[in-house]
Amino acid sequence: MIRVRARTQHRRGLDKLHRDVLHAMNAALAAADPTRIIRKNLKLIGSVLHVGNLQYPLKDYRRILVIGGGKASGYMAEEIEKLLGDWITSGLVIIPDYLRPTPRSRRIRYHPATHPIPTRKGVEGVLAMLRLVDNVSRDDLVIVLVSGGGSALMPLPVEGMNLDDEAKVTSLLLKSGASIEEVNTVRKHLSQVKGGRLAERLYPATVLTLIISDVVGDKIDAIASGPTAPDPTTYHDVELVLKKYDLWFQIPENARRIITLGLSGSIPETPKQKDKVFRRVQNVIVGNNRASCLAAASAMTKAGYRTQVLSIQITGEAREVGRIFGSIVRDIRDNSLPFAPPAALIAGGESTVTIRGKGKGGRNQELALAAAVKISGSYGVVVGSFATDGIEGRTNAAGAVVDGSTITRGLGLRMDPEEFLRNNDSYRYFSKLKDLVITGPTGTNVNDIAILAADRR
Amino acid sequence: MIRVRARTQHRRGLDKLHRDVLHAMNAALAAADPTRIIRKNLKLIGSVLHVGNLQYPLKDYRRILVIGGGKASGYMAEEIEKLLGDWITSGLVIIPDYLRPTPRSRRIRYHPATHPIPTRKGVEGVLAMLRLVDNVSRDDLVIVLVSGGGSALMPLPVEGMNLDDEAKVTSLLLKSGASIEEVNTVRKHLSQVKGGRLAERLYPATVLTLIISDVVGDKIDAIASGPTAPDPTTYHDVELVLKKYDLWFQIPENARRIITLGLSGSIPETPKQKDKVFRRVQNVIVGNNRASCLAAASAMTKAGYRTQVLSIQITGEAREVGRIFGSIVRDIRDNSLPFAPPAALIAGGESTVTIRGKGKGGRNQELALAAAVKISGSYGVVVGSFATDGIEGRTNAAGAVVDGSTITRGLGLRMDPEEFLRNNDSYRYFSKLKDLVITGPTGTNVNDIAILAADRR
Repeated sequence: MIRVRARTQHRRGLDKLHRDVLHAMNAALAAADPTRIIRKNLKLIGSVLHVGNLQYPLKDYRRILVIGGGKASGYMAEEIEKLLGDWITSGLVIIPDYLRPTPRSRRIRYHPATHPIPTRKGVEGVLAMLRLVDNVSRDDLVIVLVSGGGSALMPLPVEGMNLDDEAKVTSLLLKSGASIEEVNTVRKHLSQVKGGRLAERLYPATVLTLIISDVVGDKIDAIASGPTAPDPTTYHDVELVLKKYDLWFQIPENARRIITLGLSGSIPETPKQKDKVFRRVQNVIVGNNRASCLAAASAMTKAGYRTQVLSIQITGEAREVGRIFGSIVRDIRDNSLPFAPPAALIAGGESTVTIRGKGKGGRNQELALAAAVKISGSYGVVVGSFATDGIEGRTNAAGAVVDGSTITRGLGLRMDPEEFLRNNDSYRYFSKLKDLVITGPTGTNVNDIAILAADRR
Repeated sequence: MIRVRARTQHRRGLDKLHRDVLHAMNAALAAADPTRIIRKNLKLIGSVLHVGNLQYPLKDYRRILVIGGGKASGYMAEEIEKLLGDWITSGLVIIPDYLRPTPRSRRIRYHPATHPIPTRKGVEGVLAMLRLVDNVSRDDLVIVLVSGGGSALMPLPVEGMNLDDEAKVTSLLLKSGASIEEVNTVRKHLSQVKGGRLAERLYPATVLTLIISDVVGDKIDAIASGPTAPDPTTYHDVELVLKKYDLWFQIPENARRIITLGLSGSIPETPKQKDKVFRRVQNVIVGNNRASCLAAASAMTKAGYRTQVLSIQITGEAREVGRIFGSIVRDIRDNSLPFAPPAALIAGGESTVTIRGKGKGGRNQELALAAAVKISGSYGVVVGSFATDGIEGRTNAAGAVVDGSTITRGLGLRMDPEEFLRNNDSYRYFSKLKDLVITGPTGTNVNDIAILAADRR
């Protein structure tokens, strides 16, 4: 179980408003904690496993296997073994090699692999995992644990391709400006795990996939490239993407051959919605940005604020999002809009930073700095924004908390906020002001959460 | 009185959602109509003029004079004369020379001048206006009508400077990247009207200034450069601004001489909050973005939507604001956040466009196009955004209305939305789709309003 507390570096007493915002951040983190998520979503009543409305009578299965991979999957597995104990036959879950503490349990093994760059370690993990489920039958239950990072931690290119080929394709696509959806369309068709192909391997077993989503919008075929989700895309889409970015003749020969075979029908498509392989598969999202936003909202409500979750799909350039959040929170103060203070708005999603400078920072820190400029001089308003995985960019911070005095305090240290924004140097800015939010790596990821709050004062 | 109707160019039947959004736009426009604003805010009961809690017993005044300038000031004056009739002694209001229909009344004269570039016509208008109030006494009531554009329409540089000097200072500041607040700090100190100096001329008369605000945040010293508002800035601030941007030695000799005299105390400061000149001055905001947003919200509520004004201070790069609005309205649909459909959010403010391409467009049109990309494919969501003055950039449109089908329809006409965004060509995009919002020039300005709506379907 993760035990982290969002905190700023401020040593002296924070006022109630700041404390409430930090407390809401902690509530959001708690809701993203894989241990708590499993505890909350899975109940064992007698010998029946309940997951929401789904029921799995464990006695009916010959074997119960636990597999999967992702940043949070290890801790999910650990808690599942605590819950199910000897009901579990065996298991293998692939975790990031840097994960501390390392999850431990008796029946499930943990295989460390690299993230974000997939390597041989991941391939070995997948092969071991596939061996474990090699001869599954109708009488088996396979619990698959999926979370962010699963795509890199569970690599296995299709026969006739190697990791370097796959890496080359991905890097060409990313450089060409293809969207993440387009990149995934191609990658799913070159993998033995992604795009529902793991579900194919598990047929005809009963499959329960438990997902902690790190994808804005929670599309299950996008989270860890959807190992047990139907793939809505086709080889034809792959061809269109590659031709759109003029990459058809640039990708490795191996990849082009496979796609050509796919286009001619000589090798099978990724499995689709109506395929029989999905008949006994349930994909259940147990943790996501929404749940964490609602937890933060609930904390603010309890602390006495009129509270609303504004959106859980906020994307865009971080500084622009920050400016808008600044405008919105100022309006709570200035005009009691959308409602009178004490009031709070929670916004989830994940912004992006277009790097122009040479500084050190992250999207939440940059968002917070831009918001600080907008609220400068206003009393009783706070904007806090942080990454639920606890780490942004190359910094040791998750985000930052700002108020109406931030910019003035920065000027007192001769820091021009616009200069720091221009240089993408938000980390150094907040580091000097001691307004960073520090959580340490949280072992989970449900994207970013911002809390906009104004008090009565 | 203005009679405009926001409409799209679509000829065939719009669905209820689109009709409701356009109707709300009309409600917002009606709330910004200078005629209605005067009618709603001013009441003549017997011989007492009521403006909110303020009361002016007209019998007590020797003379009642009406002056002022701005895009909406002419129509405000026309309606005031309808209300007060022969109570008014005389008046002179400066209006844009392109204003149609030209306001007409018996006691108040209308002086046409140029906008947005101030010229001799404006100076002549101000001189005539000042002659009218030259010998005001304690027994006089002066009603000053201020609205957007008043700064350009009421130019009168301080003695020892001419319009060219002032224009040169302004243009240097704008090119150097100074903020609008910084530009105004300097300009107020070089004018005989701005920065409260008109109030100085009106002392010791009773002054009632009625303001339609075109400034996000409604700071009265910023609207038309605050002719009857205390100026919080000083010659020292002017010096700081000019030195910050290395302009001290670049501005015309005349301007530098005046600022130097000001710094040494040889010529007076702009009047400040505590000065006696403001003792009998009331600055009353009668129309602003807030009022129009609330009117739009009220229209949506009546049409059956859960409605909230999100903020009236939204600023930022138009396409980024649009993306965020798109995210927010999608979340109403996808996740019933911030509340379940049918629901609407109203957002006021004024975005900006960083011109990178050579196309034709405006900030609301660009905002709408970026929002359309975000909501593409979603059913039952609409984003409409428009400028309340009815004209954007070099286009004849006020804004645009988009829905989940916009991008698909655009692709059907071989229009790539990202390409049009890159080229700042939103006008041509929406012109082809016939999704522009057309109002014609409205004769008023309370910034921009966006309506985000989702229905139950």
